[in-house]
Amino acid sequence: MTDSSRDLRPILRPRSVAVIGASNRRGTIGAEIVRNLVVHGFCGPVYPVHPTERAIQAVRAWPDVRDIPDPVDLAVIAVRQDQVLPVARACAEKGVGGIVVITAGFKEVGGQGAAEERELTELCRAHGIALVGPNCLGVVSTDPDTRLDATFAPTFPPAGGVAVASQSGALGVAMLDYARELNIGVSDFVSMGNKADVSGNDLLQWWADDPRTRVVLLYLESFGNPERFVQLAQRVTRDKPIVAVKAGRSQKGLQAASSHTGSLAGADVAVQALVDDTGLIRVDTVEELFDMAAFLAHQPVPRGRRVAVLTNAGGPGILATDAAEAFGLDVPDLGDELQAALAAYLPAAASTRNPVDMIASATPAQFRACAELLLASDEIDALVALFVPPIVTDPAEVGQAIASAAAGSGKPVISCFMGRHGVPEGLSTLQAAHIPSYAFPESAVRVLARAARYGEHLRRPPGRAVTPPGMDLDAARAVVDAAPDGWLSPDGCQALLSAVGIPVAAGRVARTAGEAAELARAMGFPVVLKLVSDTLTHKSDVGGVKVDLRHEGDVFAAWESIAGALASRGLAEHMQGALVQPMVRGGVETLVGLTRDPSYGPLVAFGLGGVQVELMQDVGFRLAPLTDRSAAELVRGIRGFPLLDGYRGSPPADVTAIEALLLRVSALAVACPRVAELDLNPVKVLAAGRGVVAVDARVRIAAP
Amino acid sequence: MTDSSRDLRPILRPRSVAVIGASNRRGTIGAEIVRNLVVHGFCGPVYPVHPTERAIQAVRAWPDVRDIPDPVDLAVIAVRQDQVLPVARACAEKGVGGIVVITAGFKEVGGQGAAEERELTELCRAHGIALVGPNCLGVVSTDPDTRLDATFAPTFPPAGGVAVASQSGALGVAMLDYARELNIGVSDFVSMGNKADVSGNDLLQWWADDPRTRVVLLYLESFGNPERFVQLAQRVTRDKPIVAVKAGRSQKGLQAASSHTGSLAGADVAVQALVDDTGLIRVDTVEELFDMAAFLAHQPVPRGRRVAVLTNAGGPGILATDAAEAFGLDVPDLGDELQAALAAYLPAAASTRNPVDMIASATPAQFRACAELLLASDEIDALVALFVPPIVTDPAEVGQAIASAAAGSGKPVISCFMGRHGVPEGLSTLQAAHIPSYAFPESAVRVLARAARYGEHLRRPPGRAVTPPGMDLDAARAVVDAAPDGWLSPDGCQALLSAVGIPVAAGRVARTAGEAAELARAMGFPVVLKLVSDTLTHKSDVGGVKVDLRHEGDVFAAWESIAGALASRGLAEHMQGALVQPMVRGGVETLVGLTRDPSYGPLVAFGLGGVQVELMQDVGFRLAPLTDRSAAELVRGIRGFPLLDGYRGSPPADVTAIEALLLRVSALAVACPRVAELDLNPVKVLAAGRGVVAVDARVRIAAP
Repeated sequence: MTDSSRDLRPILRPRSVAVIGASNRRGTIGAEIVRNLVVHGFCGPVYPVHPTERAIQAVRAWPDVRDIPDPVDLAVIAVRQDQVLPVARACAEKGVGGIVVITAGFKEVGGQGAAEERELTELCRAHGIALVGPNCLGVVSTDPDTRLDATFAPTFPPAGGVAVASQSGALGVAMLDYARELNIGVSDFVSMGNKADVSGNDLLQWWADDPRTRVVLLYLESFGNPERFVQLAQRVTRDKPIVAVKAGRSQKGLQAASSHTGSLAGADVAVQALVDDTGLIRVDTVEELFDMAAFLAHQPVPRGRRVAVLTNAGGPGILATDAAEAFGLDVPDLGDELQAALAAYLPAAASTRNPVDMIASATPAQFRACAELLLASDEIDALVALFVPPIVTDPAEVGQAIASAAAGSGKPVISCFMGRHGVPEGLSTLQAAHIPSYAFPESAVRVLARAARYGEHLRRPPGRAVTPPGMDLDAARAVVDAAPDGWLSPDGCQALLSAVGIPVAAGRVARTAGEAAELARAMGFPVVLKLVSDTLTHKSDVGGVKVDLRHEGDVFAAWESIAGALASRGLAEHMQGALVQPMVRGGVETLVGLTRDPSYGPLVAFGLGGVQVELMQDVGFRLAPLTDRSAAELVRGIRGFPLLDGYRGSPPADVTAIEALLLRVSALAVACPRVAELDLNPVKVLAAGRGVVAVDARVRIAAP
Repeated sequence: MTDSSRDLRPILRPRSVAVIGASNRRGTIGAEIVRNLVVHGFCGPVYPVHPTERAIQAVRAWPDVRDIPDPVDLAVIAVRQDQVLPVARACAEKGVGGIVVITAGFKEVGGQGAAEERELTELCRAHGIALVGPNCLGVVSTDPDTRLDATFAPTFPPAGGVAVASQSGALGVAMLDYARELNIGVSDFVSMGNKADVSGNDLLQWWADDPRTRVVLLYLESFGNPERFVQLAQRVTRDKPIVAVKAGRSQKGLQAASSHTGSLAGADVAVQALVDDTGLIRVDTVEELFDMAAFLAHQPVPRGRRVAVLTNAGGPGILATDAAEAFGLDVPDLGDELQAALAAYLPAAASTRNPVDMIASATPAQFRACAELLLASDEIDALVALFVPPIVTDPAEVGQAIASAAAGSGKPVISCFMGRHGVPEGLSTLQAAHIPSYAFPESAVRVLARAARYGEHLRRPPGRAVTPPGMDLDAARAVVDAAPDGWLSPDGCQALLSAVGIPVAAGRVARTAGEAAELARAMGFPVVLKLVSDTLTHKSDVGGVKVDLRHEGDVFAAWESIAGALASRGLAEHMQGALVQPMVRGGVETLVGLTRDPSYGPLVAFGLGGVQVELMQDVGFRLAPLTDRSAAELVRGIRGFPLLDGYRGSPPADVTAIEALLLRVSALAVACPRVAELDLNPVKVLAAGRGVVAVDARVRIAAP
């Protein structure tokens, strides 16, 4: 893994730091950075650079970075915008290894700023300098041999195993605060700013190889190189969980994100496809990011979805149980033997079913005994311990009891000590034992549910590249190469799809009603008649599709009806003829599509046909190339999947064949970049073993 | 309103309190209650009752409540379970006005405990005593002439306008804590326990009439009298918002709720129907309950969904915008004029579109000027102000600036000061101005979205009872009275539905294939053939429905196919014949249903037909009797409603007719309690003006 990774040691493990734009005026950025470096005990020398001052905050200062008599690993630049480039050139001359540019006013303001950012990046790359920023908060490392706080944030986080990267400086400030408040130990923190050089991918690679880092947290507004991110994240998540907030998921938020970062942001559907491919744990808010980190930093990933809820109060137990079901966990009834064992420790009014309600009189000893029984049982995979301090029980002792039961159990334990007055005493014992505690049962349960899904991801084998048989990609390329930009002709569609082994309902175009009737008789009734028009793409919206035509009279009537509907809208001349197809009886109607996202690349879509896709939004997307695993997950991910799986006594549909079809579309997308869009709608999925058939197909050709 | 309301003055405005089971041993419930009463300054005398002690915590004690020489308004009982009844009898002799029973071991443990609870309730009712509990935490009032803390909770909340009732004592403790922590002023707090006498409805009525109360918060596990709750809540929410957590929404949570409270709990679908009818603001967690209270206690309800996001940092602005769209608010682009006015105060790098990103240099003066401009504009209905403290800006001044802009604007303002170090200074100025502030932008936006929905509820006129014409309920009753329990015969269904004016597709039963063909010819092709069987209820699951039969040959073939399918499963003798109906062409397939919830009463269901209802869960429920408003909301509430509203160029469907049909079903449910279930599936909704027709109907008759 290391061969392709950037050397970020000058940024995150520097042995000396220069602060250019250092200041004696407290409250300025240049002053706060020097202060943070000194106060938080940077392990090497700090060299303030200031044009005139001889000392900055009592540290010997130099007028220019080139004047510093010793080598400089890292230069932190916080000068005026128009001074950044000259200063960076001086750094290059000096031979610094890394630069962090705090100063704003570059790509995010466009125009001249963007041009200057390009120049800055080129300069750094030419000299082999790693560049973080510009327009950022700075970087932190709690590495004991480094202890670097090169930020102007007011908080230095506790040391630990959680690496944090933020594309927003403001949220970076908040994150360092939360880490301190929740006592979540941080390994490194990087405010990435405009990501002119060092990217999220570079950091991911660095943390993958960093022995101190156990969890990676990301706040992202865009992915610079999504393809590389997917490859990297797929590998990293097998070892270390990655938790991310991807902001800009709404149309309007996207707008704000682009104006904010000046980067091309992707639609949320592509982001979700990327997440689904990688095992990344996606959360919605910064709060949930840290909720997750508190768990993953020390607790094992659950081996299943079965949760025991242990509580000394009914209400919170119900809330936790409601939340568990809402988030997809099970709260199973416990077996008789286990219930009897629990009951032996509890009063008659307690409930041992699950949630296990020990009632308000529960003692620390009861907490411990019940938690031990539950954790030892093979009926559950994780324990949620809830505690509302009644007046007579000491929260610290309860915390200790839970911690003792958890120790060495190998199963995750998570807790919620409700109400302010129980928290401080209880929390300290829990924190010492690394048992995460949340203010509300719902937060605890949500964390556990996400961890359980991550565990399932880990247990499934990684996807493998699969090429279905009977694909002639050269023939497909030939069809595409020969076609002009625009919608592919019906014959072209047929040729392209058969080249890649996608079965399409046979069909021939008739120019007159008589010709249609003749074709229908030749192919056998019933048939379907479909408008052929270069200009009208949504045929059914203009009454252009007639199904189940059982004899010639039906065909003539259908032709009249299509022509009449167009004529009444003044569209008569748009009818070039009609396609006659044998009607495919039975099967489940689905939709298969291909679209290309400008940042994320080709996306394969799958959903149920008709109104389900449009109104119910029951459609999923995955990034091409698909693997056997992602194809299988795409098919099984829609709400309507039971329809394909033997719904209400109907025979199971040919799921293998639809998976293969998705892989064919994926391979086509990769082989032929000019296939901009493809719509197979409907695709009929027949009974198991009988295959699939695309009844209607549209393909748009365009320059990639 | 007051005529039907319980007099809760002895409970919540007592002039004297006896504590029976008082104790000198700190840490016992009997000691903590006396201490809370005394320390928090109860305005009248406290009379501890103890068999032997002459003074409890330095207050003169009495051996028996009857020995107290003065009148006693409220008796708080915290004795052993087996002493509660004798003590309550003594209270009745003494003539107390209200009793709060803290002691547990009654209905919640079943058996003897439940019997004793009934006896306790009867005793109190016979003597006109209001009873709270048993099995509760106690009651609080911050009324300045009362100042009552008759609980054993460690926290006395600040005084204010938020009334709180909790069905869980444990969560009650947590709630009092949160109120103190978030500085949310409470009027009264009642831990309802087993609700043996004083119910949530009684409290709602009391708080409706209480001038100090402006918002009501409820934590509920069950509704004692849902019908009365709906009536009450409908009235109260017009004046004072009610916010509720209803726990036990999952199947498993319900189980825990019943075992916990011993009460009959309802399925969540009925609860949601009740919520939809009342304007109640339902939230998922206790955290959200207080988030909502912080807003509603002082901020006006927004007049629309258009929100301006004002921020000094891009990232939080994007998160707020994402959340706004997710929760159904708009973040509209601002008009050119308003943008120009904002730009006049801001640097070039700022964004004025919305979110308005003033960038990190934003001063308090800029916050104030921009907030004023936004609040004065008729382009927005509410303002979300986000602030991440950079080092040079004073959070307290920013708080003041936002508060000044908000004052007198008449529009809601809500804020989020991110990161710990900005909060304390900023929060105090915001709190003083009653501007709620949240730790995360998502929480702020969620609160605003719920408030906006509540505002829309208030602006719509209340529903009116409507009886569609052409209903002969006497005739309907006659059909039902004559029918035995079980599924109603096809003829019975036809008679019942036509009595209430529900159009059903004509049809006649054939006993042989020949008879079917003859009937088909008589009524005209195409027809539908449906299995008739008393024993097989899901006809389509056994291949018992054949549609679009166009000539006699089709009818014979269909008959053979149905009979053959049954024979192959060994069900041949279950076929009593087949129903022949003219095929209804066109129209949108919907489902209309009636079911009865044991606690909540009749529920009318509406959804799209087929797979949408079952797999997509696209179905809504409302409690009967429906009003014009609830019928309209039921139809418009499903995701598939666009299909009825002129989808993709099809003509709009007859929404008026489907609303009328729902009102007919509702009237039938009310008039005929033995109609236990009714299924009209499908109901075809034809083009506007052409009505609806039920194609298939099932009615089950059972004792109510």
